[in-house]
Amino acid sequence: MHVAADILTDIFLMFLAAKVAGEVFERLRQPAVIGELLAGMVLGPYALGWIGVPTEGMVEAFNGQAAAQEGIAAIYEVLAELGVIILLFVVGLETRLSDILRVGARAGVVAVAGIVVPFALGFVYIQAIGRPTIEALFVATALVATSIGITARVLADLGHLQSREARIILGAAVIDDILAMIVLATVSAIGEGGEVSVGTIAVIAAQAIGFTVFVALAGRHAVRRWSVHLDSLRIRNAPFVVAMLVMLGLAALAAQIGLAAIIGAFLAGMVFAELREQHELEHRALPIYELLVPLFFVITGSHVDWRLFFDGSVLGVALTVTALAVVGKVVGCGAGAWGLGRRQMAIVGVGMTPRGEVGLIVANVGQSIGAIPDVMFSTVVIMSVLTTLVVPPILTLLYGGRSPEAEAAGDAIDTPAEFAVQDGRLPDL
Amino acid sequence: MHVAADILTDIFLMFLAAKVAGEVFERLRQPAVIGELLAGMVLGPYALGWIGVPTEGMVEAFNGQAAAQEGIAAIYEVLAELGVIILLFVVGLETRLSDILRVGARAGVVAVAGIVVPFALGFVYIQAIGRPTIEALFVATALVATSIGITARVLADLGHLQSREARIILGAAVIDDILAMIVLATVSAIGEGGEVSVGTIAVIAAQAIGFTVFVALAGRHAVRRWSVHLDSLRIRNAPFVVAMLVMLGLAALAAQIGLAAIIGAFLAGMVFAELREQHELEHRALPIYELLVPLFFVITGSHVDWRLFFDGSVLGVALTVTALAVVGKVVGCGAGAWGLGRRQMAIVGVGMTPRGEVGLIVANVGQSIGAIPDVMFSTVVIMSVLTTLVVPPILTLLYGGRSPEAEAAGDAIDTPAEFAVQDGRLPDL
Repeated sequence: MHVAADILTDIFLMFLAAKVAGEVFERLRQPAVIGELLAGMVLGPYALGWIGVPTEGMVEAFNGQAAAQEGIAAIYEVLAELGVIILLFVVGLETRLSDILRVGARAGVVAVAGIVVPFALGFVYIQAIGRPTIEALFVATALVATSIGITARVLADLGHLQSREARIILGAAVIDDILAMIVLATVSAIGEGGEVSVGTIAVIAAQAIGFTVFVALAGRHAVRRWSVHLDSLRIRNAPFVVAMLVMLGLAALAAQIGLAAIIGAFLAGMVFAELREQHELEHRALPIYELLVPLFFVITGSHVDWRLFFDGSVLGVALTVTALAVVGKVVGCGAGAWGLGRRQMAIVGVGMTPRGEVGLIVANVGQSIGAIPDVMFSTVVIMSVLTTLVVPPILTLLYGGRSPEAEAAGDAIDTPAEFAVQDGRLPDL
Repeated sequence: MHVAADILTDIFLMFLAAKVAGEVFERLRQPAVIGELLAGMVLGPYALGWIGVPTEGMVEAFNGQAAAQEGIAAIYEVLAELGVIILLFVVGLETRLSDILRVGARAGVVAVAGIVVPFALGFVYIQAIGRPTIEALFVATALVATSIGITARVLADLGHLQSREARIILGAAVIDDILAMIVLATVSAIGEGGEVSVGTIAVIAAQAIGFTVFVALAGRHAVRRWSVHLDSLRIRNAPFVVAMLVMLGLAALAAQIGLAAIIGAFLAGMVFAELREQHELEHRALPIYELLVPLFFVITGSHVDWRLFFDGSVLGVALTVTALAVVGKVVGCGAGAWGLGRRQMAIVGVGMTPRGEVGLIVANVGQSIGAIPDVMFSTVVIMSVLTTLVVPPILTLLYGGRSPEAEAAGDAIDTPAEFAVQDGRLPDL
């Protein structure tokens, strides 16, 4: 019982700090998400320590400090995951499959170039400083996968989700996640010292691609065909409840086959995009968005370990790797978006830059199989944090602030009817 | 990462089972909450074991089975707590302070009688079977506190939240929780072998009463005075966000001073009841209700340990204690509601019967200070479970089904505009 009471206090503090910081950043005409990340950094265990630190009651409940730390980390992970799933579901609701298919070829080029260039840069640099091949492979892999949550939120905050470059970024993020998974599976197989079985890798790849294509195409078909029957269900708000079920189910399934859960949530949103207005799905999802999404960003901010930046043995390598991570995506993805215009190319490149939790997952896998030492682990942590933190302000600058429509809509978006007809603009709570 | 993926699967299964069971019970014209409890019993670790059981990945993440079990329990506890907080907040939104004050004296009598009678019955019986005084005190204390979540949900499902007896039950539940806390503090002090310091008990009592009275009166004043300023905030949906903040803050504060978190959430809802229609608070809270509230009931159901019922050394005592728990509240609270009419008296008595998690908390305290042995712990667990499970069907019978208004409204409640004007009827998802 102490656990729930203490975690409840944490959740209250996170929500309070997120909203206060969001209000300040709104007044500064900056995306609220930057405020939420900063709020997490300030409240987190490496600064004030008001959140993310087990209380005495929790240590008692878990029979020990270490287990209590694991426990609180697991609870935060679940809350953050629910938040980012809702975020990508709502972004998916704003994205019709046809919009993505129209930019499909381009998104594929962006994704592939955005994988090849950072991987090559990272691999060559880590080898050049004399580290073993397996370390170079893991660090290079950590540079590969984009964490789309931050960019999606900034695009939503600024009101640019419907732009061509936003659709390229979203489509590329899905492809990127599939490719990154294949790279990680391959590198892990090498790291574990076994043969790289082409069969195993092929199965993983087929699963991921099959899941994505099947959900996107069959899901849309199913929704078109069966949505008329939703009204015959007795449970209240059946269309919304079914959409939430599909969201949770596809997110869980994606996670179970090794994809990011948010890819499943995004696909679920896209599948229901056509029913969005008819059943007010977006309007109904927004209160959940407002409650849970800020928790993801505050928790993400709370993971920033300042101390690493004062560790001389790590910092030089880490900053170089970070620079390569940024350059790799901006050059790779930007080049993939060739012909769109310089500003759009820069937006696509910067938008694909955050590594966030995906970089950390690769580092964890590498560490758990003993392939990378602590210093390389810390390097990847710093790279993940920095690529995540620099993107919101740079994207905001590139867009020169909010879209004219978003600015015009401004504070007026506060009634359901208006929500329902708004396009390309999520309320930036 | 394994943790989030696996818990996500659990959450999906819980939500799916809750909604399928809810749909079935809707069609049987029974409260959906019964279906959700049964779904939890079937999926839980003591039956199918599809939820609440740590996966291999979790055992690895937590470095051991026991810690993983603690971890999953903590995560479930937080999810369930969020669910029941939202439930009581929405019930609070339906309850104006003046409605409660009008039945205040009556609620006080019901609460006091509902504490004295079960305590006396429990104490005398456990002493009579030859157990030590301290055991009798703890079991008697476990019989004292009502867990209002179940009853509130059934009243909402059936559309009777606005009835006089519902208000008496809600008011009595608040008073009951304060009194039960004082009883528990006193008994714990005795159990720990120390002097029962009248000063300490007085401080605890003053804190709890002060919190409740201050929040109810000052909160309403603050909302009346400051609500006009909510529109000057830049964050979207500011009134709703502020209401969520107050809900989380008061729930956390109530839990920290030893009251149930749901008392804080209920008071928060009551404070905002006057702004409910103006800012569509209830309408905005409903999607969160639909997502999280079923998790509370599925998780509650999943805690039912069938095996206890086949333990001969426990069952006889446990069933007797359960009978005394039911008789104590029905007679005590029912008598407190004297003069309301026989059916209303029965409804008040039965409505105050569930002990749920509150009984378990008392048992945990008793066990942790070594005051009660395993057999008495199991007795309290069985009593808590049975008093919780029997109430929904009996209340439904006593009401003879749904209120006429609820039945008339029926499936038509599915648009926001209709939600907003509905009174005394929450959608029974």
